[in-house]
Amino acid sequence: MAQTERDQITMRSHVHRFTLTDPGNVSPLAEAFRSGQLDPATVVAVIGKTPGNGLVNDYTRGYLTQSLALLIGSHTGQSWQQVTERVPFIFSGGTEGVLTPHITVFCAEPGERSRASSIYSASADTSASPGLAIATAFTPALAPDAIGRNGQALATAEAVRNAMTAAGINDPADVHFVQVKGPCLTAAKMAEARSQGLAVAGTSADQSMALSRVASAFGVALALGEIQEDQLEEAAFLTDFRLWSGVASCSSGIEVSCNEIVLLGNSRHWQSDYRIGHRPMADALDIRAIYDLIDELGLDPAAPEIAAAFVKCEPDRRGLIRGQPHTMLNDGDLNPQRHIRGAVGAIAAAVFSDTRIFVSGGAEHQGPDGGGTVTAIARKPELAP
Amino acid sequence: MAQTERDQITMRSHVHRFTLTDPGNVSPLAEAFRSGQLDPATVVAVIGKTPGNGLVNDYTRGYLTQSLALLIGSHTGQSWQQVTERVPFIFSGGTEGVLTPHITVFCAEPGERSRASSIYSASADTSASPGLAIATAFTPALAPDAIGRNGQALATAEAVRNAMTAAGINDPADVHFVQVKGPCLTAAKMAEARSQGLAVAGTSADQSMALSRVASAFGVALALGEIQEDQLEEAAFLTDFRLWSGVASCSSGIEVSCNEIVLLGNSRHWQSDYRIGHRPMADALDIRAIYDLIDELGLDPAAPEIAAAFVKCEPDRRGLIRGQPHTMLNDGDLNPQRHIRGAVGAIAAAVFSDTRIFVSGGAEHQGPDGGGTVTAIARKPELAP
Amino acid sequence: MAQTERDQITMRSHVHRFTLTDPGNVSPLAEAFRSGQLDPATVVAVIGKTPGNGLVNDYTRGYLTQSLALLIGSHTGQSWQQVTERVPFIFSGGTEGVLTPHITVFCAEPGERSRASSIYSASADTSASPGLAIATAFTPALAPDAIGRNGQALATAEAVRNAMTAAGINDPADVHFVQVKGPCLTAAKMAEARSQGLAVAGTSADQSMALSRVASAFGVALALGEIQEDQLEEAAFLTDFRLWSGVASCSSGIEVSCNEIVLLGNSRHWQSDYRIGHRPMADALDIRAIYDLIDELGLDPAAPEIAAAFVKCEPDRRGLIRGQPHTMLNDGDLNPQRHIRGAVGAIAAAVFSDTRIFVSGGAEHQGPDGGGTVTAIARKPELAP
Amino acid sequence: MAQTERDQITMRSHVHRFTLTDPGNVSPLAEAFRSGQLDPATVVAVIGKTPGNGLVNDYTRGYLTQSLALLIGSHTGQSWQQVTERVPFIFSGGTEGVLTPHITVFCAEPGERSRASSIYSASADTSASPGLAIATAFTPALAPDAIGRNGQALATAEAVRNAMTAAGINDPADVHFVQVKGPCLTAAKMAEARSQGLAVAGTSADQSMALSRVASAFGVALALGEIQEDQLEEAAFLTDFRLWSGVASCSSGIEVSCNEIVLLGNSRHWQSDYRIGHRPMADALDIRAIYDLIDELGLDPAAPEIAAAFVKCEPDRRGLIRGQPHTMLNDGDLNPQRHIRGAVGAIAAAVFSDTRIFVSGGAEHQGPDGGGTVTAIARKPELAP
Repeated sequence: MAQTERDQITMRSHVHRFTLTDPGNVSPLAEAFRSGQLDPATVVAVIGKTPGNGLVNDYTRGYLTQSLALLIGSHTGQSWQQVTERVPFIFSGGTEGVLTPHITVFCAEPGERSRASSIYSASADTSASPGLAIATAFTPALAPDAIGRNGQALATAEAVRNAMTAAGINDPADVHFVQVKGPCLTAAKMAEARSQGLAVAGTSADQSMALSRVASAFGVALALGEIQEDQLEEAAFLTDFRLWSGVASCSSGIEVSCNEIVLLGNSRHWQSDYRIGHRPMADALDIRAIYDLIDELGLDPAAPEIAAAFVKCEPDRRGLIRGQPHTMLNDGDLNPQRHIRGAVGAIAAAVFSDTRIFVSGGAEHQGPDGGGTVTAIARKPELAP
Repeated sequence: MAQTERDQITMRSHVHRFTLTDPGNVSPLAEAFRSGQLDPATVVAVIGKTPGNGLVNDYTRGYLTQSLALLIGSHTGQSWQQVTERVPFIFSGGTEGVLTPHITVFCAEPGERSRASSIYSASADTSASPGLAIATAFTPALAPDAIGRNGQALATAEAVRNAMTAAGINDPADVHFVQVKGPCLTAAKMAEARSQGLAVAGTSADQSMALSRVASAFGVALALGEIQEDQLEEAAFLTDFRLWSGVASCSSGIEVSCNEIVLLGNSRHWQSDYRIGHRPMADALDIRAIYDLIDELGLDPAAPEIAAAFVKCEPDRRGLIRGQPHTMLNDGDLNPQRHIRGAVGAIAAAVFSDTRIFVSGGAEHQGPDGGGTVTAIARKPELAP
Repeated sequence: MAQTERDQITMRSHVHRFTLTDPGNVSPLAEAFRSGQLDPATVVAVIGKTPGNGLVNDYTRGYLTQSLALLIGSHTGQSWQQVTERVPFIFSGGTEGVLTPHITVFCAEPGERSRASSIYSASADTSASPGLAIATAFTPALAPDAIGRNGQALATAEAVRNAMTAAGINDPADVHFVQVKGPCLTAAKMAEARSQGLAVAGTSADQSMALSRVASAFGVALALGEIQEDQLEEAAFLTDFRLWSGVASCSSGIEVSCNEIVLLGNSRHWQSDYRIGHRPMADALDIRAIYDLIDELGLDPAAPEIAAAFVKCEPDRRGLIRGQPHTMLNDGDLNPQRHIRGAVGAIAAAVFSDTRIFVSGGAEHQGPDGGGTVTAIARKPELAP
Repeated sequence: MAQTERDQITMRSHVHRFTLTDPGNVSPLAEAFRSGQLDPATVVAVIGKTPGNGLVNDYTRGYLTQSLALLIGSHTGQSWQQVTERVPFIFSGGTEGVLTPHITVFCAEPGERSRASSIYSASADTSASPGLAIATAFTPALAPDAIGRNGQALATAEAVRNAMTAAGINDPADVHFVQVKGPCLTAAKMAEARSQGLAVAGTSADQSMALSRVASAFGVALALGEIQEDQLEEAAFLTDFRLWSGVASCSSGIEVSCNEIVLLGNSRHWQSDYRIGHRPMADALDIRAIYDLIDELGLDPAAPEIAAAFVKCEPDRRGLIRGQPHTMLNDGDLNPQRHIRGAVGAIAAAVFSDTRIFVSGGAEHQGPDGGGTVTAIARKPELAP
């Protein structure tokens, strides 16, 4: 048998979703490890929703990270801290309304026809449809005067390009989701950096968090050609909302020092039962975008079966949705992010008929202004029952 | 005197929705009165969503009532307290997520072909499709040992029958929405009633509120034949959730002493540009029910245009939605009713493409267990542009 | 004409506190009017705590204003809107923890020995101790580019000086409390003003609210000599916290267009059973300040009996209290102002043995940084039982 | 030298408090272990406040437990789960207002004059004042029909007696604090137990939590003679509030299956720099109780220096404090427990001049109705600088 075609598919991806009843209870994943359903060594990233408030004082993200890393480390012989250096754990708190806390575990392993000499050969398998491709990447540690500024954007862009290469994706159109988690500054760290003469972006921790997300989003957009290099201007951050990435999903927190990136797309180099697609959402009510995505993935709109879905959304900062006022920005008791996650999450859950949706706020420059993005992974139509 | 067809249509209904920016600001309605768009004397009921939390300490409902009654009274020469005795003001607090605070003003006036001798004659106009019919009714004041018990249910049933007569509706199938606001007891009033030897239902104000809603719902169901008289058992309250009304929408509060009822349906006796329809929702994700209602009303699912919509919903008390856990019942920071209104309200808003939806929690025995109901008013298809 | 001692005392003040069970229920004050305990025509100001959240979407303040003004107007033959133009109604929402919603009604009337020719003559009664003096004042309407800036401070200073004159107080040391309610800008009004070329302070409604409070506080401090004119610099606003007023208590809101001022002090020109005192609080735990105030007012520390008390406080913006971290600034579920009101309000309530304390956050430049002020009105010691 | 006296003091206690910046950050304790300030093997109990909401969905307690047990286990060669079986970790969430998250680590080790033959000899050292005595105890696992019922109370009483013996305390008057953490039932476990014919107390998880605290409190009261055996009636639970323990501090949660007990008192058998005292609080404003405790401990009321303090409190269920209404029970946005912890915690913090106070709600039958208890540990007066 001729060698070529078999060489070209080198990796195989899996997607596993587990419901989470408590951030300290990782027994469903432990059972999957025990039963052999899932090999701990193949876990490359975990993305999930935890039951906290998703705001600064949400400790469920750290708790789940510690719990999962302890479990994986007990199988791989690593300390839990070592596991967190290798595997991005990207958690968003807040399962408002109908949403279910859960984790999606991404696994990658050498495919059955791989060869040692090269991961991806020049041409890909043309006999199978493109499969879900997964890659992670990390930027170097970011200096205080890079965070929320062009420096972070450029470093992110380079890491995204590296992740594309690692995923065997050449065409940016094949990238459908780039989850980024980046560092931000506290008020104390800002003061310290300024005292050293560094030019720091923002004047509060909240602003630093937002600007970090924005810089990450611009980095993704740059790497994928959604914006051009001459459009990368800090003056546009949080100002020129015509500039956005349709695939970036960015978060920030003080617990990381570099940008951690999980890139998902479709590639002929990957064997997988799954494929991925995405759509921008024009506003919080853009239910059409979700149906279009279902159509693109070849699913039955009356009973779509998804393996995972990701939504990025934002309370419209102008205070209006389709011309009518909303109250999210003026509610002293309930944070705007909790409002919007509960609302857009419910719309996605209803259309997908699935409550285990990753919904994340803070969508500045990630999808259209006042809207966001929706992304889904599903079995390939040809594999559907 | 010979009766002609022209005699038989005696009433005309209108529906006006106004966005609410502040419960103390009723200037949009004042402007409508001033411009003649709306005659203050024809206002028969106001149903609305206010921007409070919708819980016990939500004073936006009382504030809006006072503000609206002051305005209407300034036109009709009544004190604001007198206006509240004539016009039911039924407000639900809580515009979580994408929802817009608003009021829907229902007006009724003698139709152009009415005659003084009789409001409704034996047979109706067959040349026009049935139009939106509106009637209000009040039970007598309810004694403490009637509230949340069979006594309230039976009184409600009689008032609903009266309202049907007043609306010119004979067939219960033509009734599509019965909004009821009934009294409940505080802990103090319970203690007082018990000390007088009265058998009072419930042990807390919260329980009294729920039981009042339940008794009202059973009353509606009884009047409309959704349950039979032998099924009206207090033992079934909050227990046998197979018993429910598909059109009841019940609330309770300490500010009323009798049940106030607003009944909406379709009738050939009413001239109106509008008609009404409703569907039960099987669970919080039952998006199909909303599309079915849109279809029933003859609207374009891609761009439905509604005049008003009403949703009743409930966080599933078993903690699961389609087999997956939700966190609404365990969230110490955010009340379950705020969660569910934001979620189901967003689904309805997305499908209707309209954020001015009346969404109310506390749906015990009002629609299927864990679900609820959805109701909409729209222009008749033959009048659509 | 020879002046006698009888001429010199011209006014008489009263203080009445009423518990508030609902912002729409003003029946205790209505009963006091009915019984003659209180003359509606003598009401000069009302200061109170309402049961809302005290944040942007707290409508209990407006509701109580409408309810009280309706009641007073029904006695004075004015519309409720007219009453609000004459009487400052200054309400702070948020009765966290042990606090009780209540209103303090300030009344002033000509004293028994007054003469028509002049309100205050050159020398005062030396036979009685100074009594509680009350005056109100209003600045002209403030332009958008005055709000939160020197313009507002200077206008406030002039109004405070007018109020001192009206109160018959010459010595700033006799002024113990200056409650100011001033206007602020919404994001929309900021944009509009900027488009007209106006230099507007702040970039968000929250910032405008804070800057309005600060400008008011600087205005009070200037009028009372707590800061000098050359220290009134906008660069010091929210920056140089060594500058503060020990008697200013400032709030801001979009519902007013000028600064409304209620000034309280002690004066020999006033007949009153009451006197007032105040102390700065060094931090949120400064219980010593409250005991010192009790001592100054001649009260029994084991059973002080106060007629009213006012506390201004602030969650320390540096995140520390006496060297230990607090969590108020990072709590995504509970606003920092609700935290601090509940805490400092409880301390004051415990020391005063009285839960009807007016506690208000937003104490920037009102008392020491991280602390605030405490003020109390009590019967004169010589009148104590 | 005669043997006797040296034998009689056999144990030595230490108390260490550490500020907590994050439930995942136990580095201050790690540093204390590293520096030798504290021997990991001597840790017998940890009591602390975490920054969560202190309600059902507060995961900071579990996170801190996991983090601390990992740290201790890394020193003692145990898994973190093994550590939790030996050391009670009792955490209360919620550091509202001025409170600081922190842990108090209790250590016990053989004293310098101990002998192997017997821990406590018949008579104690009379040369030193009694020192802080510490003991822990566990009941057997509690069956569903024991929880919240007499069974739990009796088992608790026996464990408390065991702990007294272990602490070398004979006289109940020498016991000043008994922290109990007991199991409760979820709705699901209740249904399961009922289906097995078991008589289960309560109808909801909330009720089960309260009844578990009550049964624990009755158990403590029984062991210490605060109530007599014939007063232990389930009919009195949550009803007869004249029955209470002045030293019990009880919590409940689904994470434990037996009652865990930490008992603190004073004993001549313990060498310690510290002693402990307590007082009942008559209501939420009972500042006098705290000053009395300071006096009892021989501290300077103007600058008391405490090593730890514990407060149990409750929003008065009758809705009144000293005759005036509070709003804690009707606030739909802020749980009553968060309200009361912030209020009473602030009062204690102000009087003690210390923000690291353990404040816990749910004080049913733990101190007077509507009040609670206050407990403090301080250096013996003779050791004060």
